Amino acid sequence: MNPIQRVAIAGGTHGNELTGIYLINKFEQFPHLTKRANFKTQTLLGNPKAVSAGRRYIDKDLNRCFGKQNLKDMTLSCYEEIRAKIIQKILEHNGQSPVDVLLDLHSTTSNMGVTIILGSLHPFNLRLAAYISSMNPLIKLYSSAQAGREDVSLKSLGKFGFTIEVGPVAPGTLNAEMFQKTEEIVQGILDYLEKWNQGKISDDKMPLTLYQYVGVIDYPRNEQGKILAMIHPQLQCRDYTALHPGEPIFLTFDGEAIAYTQNTTLYPVFINEAAYYEKGIAMYLTEKQELIV
Amino acid sequence: MNPIQRVAIAGGTHGNELTGIYLINKFEQFPHLTKRANFKTQTLLGNPKAVSAGRRYIDKDLNRCFGKQNLKDMTLSCYEEIRAKIIQKILEHNGQSPVDVLLDLHSTTSNMGVTIILGSLHPFNLRLAAYISSMNPLIKLYSSAQAGREDVSLKSLGKFGFTIEVGPVAPGTLNAEMFQKTEEIVQGILDYLEKWNQGKISDDKMPLTLYQYVGVIDYPRNEQGKILAMIHPQLQCRDYTALHPGEPIFLTFDGEAIAYTQNTTLYPVFINEAAYYEKGIAMYLTEKQELIV
Repeated sequence: MNPIQRVAIAGGTHGNELTGIYLINKFEQFPHLTKRANFKTQTLLGNPKAVSAGRRYIDKDLNRCFGKQNLKDMTLSCYEEIRAKIIQKILEHNGQSPVDVLLDLHSTTSNMGVTIILGSLHPFNLRLAAYISSMNPLIKLYSSAQAGREDVSLKSLGKFGFTIEVGPVAPGTLNAEMFQKTEEIVQGILDYLEKWNQGKISDDKMPLTLYQYVGVIDYPRNEQGKILAMIHPQLQCRDYTALHPGEPIFLTFDGEAIAYTQNTTLYPVFINEAAYYEKGIAMYLTEKQELIV
Repeated sequence: MNPIQRVAIAGGTHGNELTGIYLINKFEQFPHLTKRANFKTQTLLGNPKAVSAGRRYIDKDLNRCFGKQNLKDMTLSCYEEIRAKIIQKILEHNGQSPVDVLLDLHSTTSNMGVTIILGSLHPFNLRLAAYISSMNPLIKLYSSAQAGREDVSLKSLGKFGFTIEVGPVAPGTLNAEMFQKTEEIVQGILDYLEKWNQGKISDDKMPLTLYQYVGVIDYPRNEQGKILAMIHPQLQCRDYTALHPGEPIFLTFDGEAIAYTQNTTLYPVFINEAAYYEKGIAMYLTEKQELIV
């Protein structure tokens, strides 16, 4: 594998996720923080118009606009679809796309702690993730790479793409602890890449706990699509915790519990993420896997 | 004092605070829930356009549009200023304003638990608050009535106005526990009013812990108004907890703590409320008072 030459760090892909926005501001004010001897780092504010408006997006979720077809389709005219093409252009170098490593900084209303979302299960990604989580075992690793869907998020513009998700953080707020943890993880990844370029990463196998996407559960809804129940208090904030058949997942507005009916124990993530109500997602379900990479 | 004849319950005054919106939906679907023999109850969605958009407001915070001058000024033309006049009209009865009791249901990103905000320190309000908090000592009572500012919020349309604030709840999300607690407190207040009309509320004095507005602290900002620090992790979620001189309240993006410099112990509330960043409010400061009412 060639050395890592170009790294991009993005924040504000969603305009109301302040952690990434203020961290990009900081990195742009103090470029030495992200500078390493053996690769170039560039920083980027994903959705500046949405950042100014303090909203997740203006017309459409930018982080769903990076599908290959979308990026080629010049008839698409909403703000985020145009912005996606501009970002692709910004990240090009000598007509060559993509960057080697792309880190996209996000926050979520779900209790995701500090999560790295892997863009693919390429051994490079897995070993980076294993290394970072060995430094801080509280870091969680999630991937939907085997879901068989195209990755249409910003991280797909990187040869190796990672989303950092921290939560719970309310949209439109800064949480100092989560800000610092996001900065730490970015620094950890940049240091890893530097060591990797220097040949200082050992070949020893490493253990890895990976939560892999299995499916989605939506809120119970009526025929008009109106939500009929809330996340059950026993499930609220229990991201990455085993959900067993028969356990309550929803509570109707009348106080009636609705149980999880699948017959396997899975691990929900992104429970009660604000932005997913409109996407028909109350939570993702994942399988917990112990790997050696 | 005359009996209570008309009660109004509002939700969705801020379009992204789902607790109140879904509770109003429930009350409108099942009117018997808010019906009492001795007064009439009406329900109201404050800002339907903002509810549809999933945003706090369209043009301007509706909950700052109920000043007496504003309500008279027919030249004001933004959506919320027009909506405020319509709400005033909706709540009129035979040309008579205001309703006797107005409950406005809100949520906040701050750790406010379940808070009743009193529109005034009228003995009726204080005794109602004392009664409700005697039923559930976890309920907190806050008032800015002695701040010397006009109440420009929706609750000011009630002869006796109360805002119910629950948190932390992220904008755009439902929290089942907070939904149920809000419903409980509404039911508790309606039951109190019914008993009051029936002469079943004793005259015995009751103790009351009231947090009274003293002032505001904004985030440290640069000359362009850009925020230079976050709420300090030691202060985050510490609403209603004593803040002593010298204790850290902010943390700069470089990790430097900024201390509370006033020389009296006060009790911050609305710490890190998302919607207050643009209003120049990092937290309110309050004085804790023990009253007998």
